[in-house]
Amino acid sequence: MKMLLIHADYLEFEAKEKTKIAEETDILKGRMEDCLVCFIAVERGDNKNVIKPAIEEIDKVAKQLKVNNIVLYPYAHLSSDLSDPETAVNILKLLEEELKSRYNVLRAPFGWYKSFKLSCKGHPLSELSRKIEPKEEEEKKEVKS
Amino acid sequence: MKMLLIHADYLEFEAKEKTKIAEETDILKGRMEDCLVCFIAVERGDNKNVIKPAIEEIDKVAKQLKVNNIVLYPYAHLSSDLSDPETAVNILKLLEEELKSRYNVLRAPFGWYKSFKLSCKGHPLSELSRKIEPKEEEEKKEVKS
Ligand SMILES: [Mg+2]
Repeated sequence: MKMLLIHADYLEFEAKEKTKIAEETDILKGRMEDCLVCFIAVERGDNKNVIKPAIEEIDKVAKQLKVNNIVLYPYAHLSSDLSDPETAVNILKLLEEELKSRYNVLRAPFGWYKSFKLSCKGHPLSELSRKIEPKEEEEKKEVKS
Repeated sequence: MKMLLIHADYLEFEAKEKTKIAEETDILKGRMEDCLVCFIAVERGDNKNVIKPAIEEIDKVAKQLKVNNIVLYPYAHLSSDLSDPETAVNILKLLEEELKSRYNVLRAPFGWYKSFKLSCKGHPLSELSRKIEPKEEEEKKEVKS
């Protein structure tokens, strides 16, 4: 998974047109103020084991920036090695589920052409990129013979 | 070179703070309307031979979109395999030189923390990403024995 994290004055979007892989949704527009925008590309090899390290990274940055508002925004252009669309949507939904107990979360729909307006704050921590690798839930114990 | 091309209602930026690799410049803020924003990461292995194919790609998209306004915006987060800063600045300046005979060009400074505001139009051609490879100026001719 690739993530580009932007500390923004605001992010707003409007879904304009479906692509062939558009998810069904009623949330076709949205806006959030003073937020951490997480542009996300789910990559080949990603599975539910990427959720925990992704959340840890988002938590860490959100805490540093003292933000309570999170935008999850699918962004295929961050990777040239994307997962299939079903996996991507599932992972984005799982991220949303995990985050929304602790943050206000706005998730932009996957697979739509969208207009967006973004204002990046511009301080040193306001643009960060991360590569997140899936991590097995249980540590494998070394078997001694 | 990686490029993310965004057809925008506007892009504006303001350089806020230098990083260690900041270029010297007097252009610390700027705004352009109805523009093609070229977010660019110059990568290891890029040299002046990347200019021509990059310009061809920008020309092609600018023609399709019928835009006369081009923003060149350095964006390291598009790649995990960046060039050295000197090469990056040189290539960005060469791109600017080549483009400005035919377009209005705004180039955001390299190596500064910048705030920015962006409005992406959201039609199907309004977000495109490209990987550009350096191309030798002269075609190698096959030597027949
Ligand atoms: Mg504000």
